[in-house]
Amino acid sequence: MRSSSDAGSRPGKVDSAKEDIPERHGSRSPGTLKVIGLGPGNSDYLTPSARHALKEADVIVGYKGYIELIDTDILQDKNVISTGMRGEIERCLKAIDAAMAGKKTVVVSSGDPGIYGMAGLVMELLHEKNLLHKVEVEIIPGIPALSAAASLLGAPLMHDFAVVSLSDLLTPWEVIKKRLITALEADFVIVIYNPRSRKRNWQLSEALKLVIEYRGGAVPVGIVRNAARTDQQVSVVRADQVDAESIDMLTILFVGNSKTRQRGEFMVTPRGYLDKYGHR
Amino acid sequence: MRSSSDAGSRPGKVDSAKEDIPERHGSRSPGTLKVIGLGPGNSDYLTPSARHALKEADVIVGYKGYIELIDTDILQDKNVISTGMRGEIERCLKAIDAAMAGKKTVVVSSGDPGIYGMAGLVMELLHEKNLLHKVEVEIIPGIPALSAAASLLGAPLMHDFAVVSLSDLLTPWEVIKKRLITALEADFVIVIYNPRSRKRNWQLSEALKLVIEYRGGAVPVGIVRNAARTDQQVSVVRADQVDAESIDMLTILFVGNSKTRQRGEFMVTPRGYLDKYGHR
Repeated sequence: MRSSSDAGSRPGKVDSAKEDIPERHGSRSPGTLKVIGLGPGNSDYLTPSARHALKEADVIVGYKGYIELIDTDILQDKNVISTGMRGEIERCLKAIDAAMAGKKTVVVSSGDPGIYGMAGLVMELLHEKNLLHKVEVEIIPGIPALSAAASLLGAPLMHDFAVVSLSDLLTPWEVIKKRLITALEADFVIVIYNPRSRKRNWQLSEALKLVIEYRGGAVPVGIVRNAARTDQQVSVVRADQVDAESIDMLTILFVGNSKTRQRGEFMVTPRGYLDKYGHR
Repeated sequence: MRSSSDAGSRPGKVDSAKEDIPERHGSRSPGTLKVIGLGPGNSDYLTPSARHALKEADVIVGYKGYIELIDTDILQDKNVISTGMRGEIERCLKAIDAAMAGKKTVVVSSGDPGIYGMAGLVMELLHEKNLLHKVEVEIIPGIPALSAAASLLGAPLMHDFAVVSLSDLLTPWEVIKKRLITALEADFVIVIYNPRSRKRNWQLSEALKLVIEYRGGAVPVGIVRNAARTDQQVSVVRADQVDAESIDMLTILFVGNSKTRQRGEFMVTPRGYLDKYGHR
């Protein structure tokens, strides 16, 4: 088991190599590779740890839409490498090259890099290139989209939940469908990422049909677009009243479990305290 | 649909009442009630938004173990109301009373208050007491334990995942067991909260038996105790090598899906980029 005695001052640092396999240390590249989460993109939700990594960086790599979320004063005097959508592998390779060349390198993700973010691809590529122990890599978590969005809805995630991406770009629809059905059967609250894009326009309607079939049309669905950004939109509606056509890639949905209720403008999934301990 | 034009400056603020039902505003108590997430408890992961709420507060309410995580300079000159374990309802009622009495009141949770945290109970009690529209309530997300822990393991959550608490204090074991089995069948990565306590000592072993039955003994399991705290411990082992006896309430576990692999000291669930786009 790895343990970290200095985690208090350097949270998130994976420092086991230091203790377990000291010889690795000498053979590592002088650069570092940090994969950080910006959270929703608003600086009020950027952790000190992520801000520090950005400030210290020589090279900042990311999708241009996310780079734009960073305060311009942080980006000054940095080598910023940004690419468009679908440039994920290219971006990660450039970041690895920079770290191997001795640069303090930061890869940015929106939300949490560990949830459908860049952490996985960075780790996979480091493994493929046999560099996992040559580069000092650190993942710095961010406020995930599911947390930012849930906070605006009230408390939809107070009980067990399942997180499903509807994107079938890398996952067959049959796998996604099976996950939705089993999550519905087991009464999980369901968080839906990547519900719909211009090209991927039928999956959400199929998912909502399943929701209504298994949970009924009245189950509350929370819809949050651009959580904690300037054009944030929040609503709670019945499943049979969701307007799928109005939903896009920047939206995240929450399907209530059998006990979730709409409470005023909010959506609340009870944990069970009040049933057990009274206050009725 | 609610929308927020000033979300850029005040992320997370649920401000729909201001726009939709202005008359509510006049009847609200002068106090505020903010439910905030401390994240792992280390100040490097406390968001500026949560820190601001703590600094501005008149009254800070929380479980004493979490109050201890807050920098003492923030707590100076505050009315701090802390109670022990199982005091959840009492704490929330005291916080609601303070907010109704006009105080700027903050309820603290570790991690994200929206994930098995205090947000739900606060909302439920406000609803029960018919105060949901009398108190200006705001949920401020924090880095969830699952994100802090995953970041130390590498990238276990790169694909669809299910989050299950093994505590049967408020949920029957049969419900928990069904959720575990369906999540295993649908190949979700599974995050296990509240795996074991001194009194609740058999559920984790039962859960691990199911994991081995459905996924085999070799599936990687990530174990993180006290993520980003001073006595942080991190390990990745095979499911059939987990020492259940060594695991306590401060630990969170990650069960890989069929594609998750141990990579050096890390645990990585591929998203599928490399299979689709090459680099082999």
